[in-house]
Amino acid sequence: MSKVGILGAGTWGIALSRMLANTGHTVTVWSALPDEVKQLDQTRQQKNLPGMTIPASITFTSDLPAACTDQALLLLAVPSVYVRSTVKQAAPFIPAGQLIVDVAKGLEPDTMLTMTQVIADELSQLHAPKMRLVALSGPTHAEEVALDLPTTIVAAADDEEAAKQAQDIFTSSFMRVYTNPDRYGVELCGALKNIIALAAGISDGLGYGDNAKAALITRGMTEIKRLGTKLGAHAATFDGLAGIGDLIVTGTSTHSRNHNCGLLIGQGMSPAAAKKQIGMVVEGINAIPGALELAAKANVSMPIVETVDQVINHGLDPKEAVQQLLNRKKKAEF
Amino acid sequence: MSKVGILGAGTWGIALSRMLANTGHTVTVWSALPDEVKQLDQTRQQKNLPGMTIPASITFTSDLPAACTDQALLLLAVPSVYVRSTVKQAAPFIPAGQLIVDVAKGLEPDTMLTMTQVIADELSQLHAPKMRLVALSGPTHAEEVALDLPTTIVAAADDEEAAKQAQDIFTSSFMRVYTNPDRYGVELCGALKNIIALAAGISDGLGYGDNAKAALITRGMTEIKRLGTKLGAHAATFDGLAGIGDLIVTGTSTHSRNHNCGLLIGQGMSPAAAKKQIGMVVEGINAIPGALELAAKANVSMPIVETVDQVINHGLDPKEAVQQLLNRKKKAEF
Repeated sequence: MSKVGILGAGTWGIALSRMLANTGHTVTVWSALPDEVKQLDQTRQQKNLPGMTIPASITFTSDLPAACTDQALLLLAVPSVYVRSTVKQAAPFIPAGQLIVDVAKGLEPDTMLTMTQVIADELSQLHAPKMRLVALSGPTHAEEVALDLPTTIVAAADDEEAAKQAQDIFTSSFMRVYTNPDRYGVELCGALKNIIALAAGISDGLGYGDNAKAALITRGMTEIKRLGTKLGAHAATFDGLAGIGDLIVTGTSTHSRNHNCGLLIGQGMSPAAAKKQIGMVVEGINAIPGALELAAKANVSMPIVETVDQVINHGLDPKEAVQQLLNRKKKAEF
Repeated sequence: MSKVGILGAGTWGIALSRMLANTGHTVTVWSALPDEVKQLDQTRQQKNLPGMTIPASITFTSDLPAACTDQALLLLAVPSVYVRSTVKQAAPFIPAGQLIVDVAKGLEPDTMLTMTQVIADELSQLHAPKMRLVALSGPTHAEEVALDLPTTIVAAADDEEAAKQAQDIFTSSFMRVYTNPDRYGVELCGALKNIIALAAGISDGLGYGDNAKAALITRGMTEIKRLGTKLGAHAATFDGLAGIGDLIVTGTSTHSRNHNCGLLIGQGMSPAAAKKQIGMVVEGINAIPGALELAAKANVSMPIVETVDQVINHGLDPKEAVQQLLNRKKKAEF
């Protein structure tokens, strides 16, 4: 059994910390907020995971050096917007060669870096070339992992040994972990799938059915794959658990913020009002500029992403948008 | 506009006939049952498509030669078990070089032939090598096409001109048709996806969640693709609308007989009792022997299909089956 440090105490960090502790690992969870640490430690409950009890064996702390020291694995589970600042703060306490697993998904604005690329960027001056970075991603509602429901996930790393070590640690009685050599492809899927989930929500909001939604999910992943492979990622990643698998869960779930924001827009609400009503970050909207920039750079056509951009940012009527997609020039599937 | 003959008056044949007639094509629908012809002609309703009115312009007939003569396109829309006998009966009236589109899905027991291969087999003595055969397949609930809801579909043929002609005729204001050069791959997906839909239903019946279902759908299509590419089909077909797209619709729909049969089994009913309660053909169960035979022939591992076979035909407890799948040797995703 291993020692694991977890940075971040949101739903996903806590659901994974509970699973790891129940598997027998020694788990320390860090949060930047002392009040959150106190509340989690005392109540052993996470407010967004009702009914789940946090094992007594988990240590909560707001002491960052303590959380980073002497761990077999360090799990980054803070929201994507805090990844750079958290790693910057933690870097002095992270040993060279530390196995680091990231579960945050997103592209950093301006740099277009994925989350493990941001981590590498922050650590590079201290530790290069000894970094062992893994992206952990797949079709994984935290709420289901918190209930021990069967789940699969991908541990992706350029370094096969790092991926296998993460596979060993995250394998549990209900979680099956596959290794994958394509960290960049896995992270690209995680960052871009929310745009397609937004499109699926808009389709539902317009009153369209399963045929339209399956078409958007399938053709949406086709265009993400077209972009990703042009950027050097592996085609099979996009057909796998972190690609189409994660998009199926996100695009068909009524728990997804991206799907629900799209739903409101499809029902006639303005994008600005829908964003306001959701009240939290809608990753799909934030990912649009990055996707378009990468597509332009790679000279790849992404008709669904471009149409979502027109609806969200340029006032195109959703019904008209669907007609535009349907009436494009007749073509071959591949 | 074109003349189209449709053999078969089930939900899918009627939903397509209505769309084609509304697009301006001249449509004749044949049924083997004179009573059905009379009822459809008089009521302009199909009992399983409530609320849909059949256009007055459609001609219904039980005269097979009339339905097959002088058509730009002949659509085979009979259940898969009737494809061979229908084509045998119609063959003398089908002109050489006739464009034939099939929508029935399945593998013929014993021969392992797909439906267009069965058609080719029946017509070969009369017409070879002048056959123009297209498989039309995708994520397409008939109920949604009957309501003009946006839908995508694939027209697959070895002969590109045949695929394009079908594309032209089936394109409508709400249906987008992609051509595909891999007829065999498209038909293999249609025949085998129902086994995975059965597995998804079993998972739901056990009370498992979206994570498990997305994993079964993703990994299920991975093993169908592994088999199909070994048998000469194109990998991209399995990642496309007739592959993962159709499986998403079938595996997540509560309208699918295969999903519902699995659901009952997951809830504890015996496979025999579940089959009896569904009361209609459960294609996923019928497809298992063919899938296993092809997998053995191609020397390909299909763990999900093999596990479904154990549950359906050899008394394995569904919960135990899930544990077996989760506890397989750790591996790489691809």
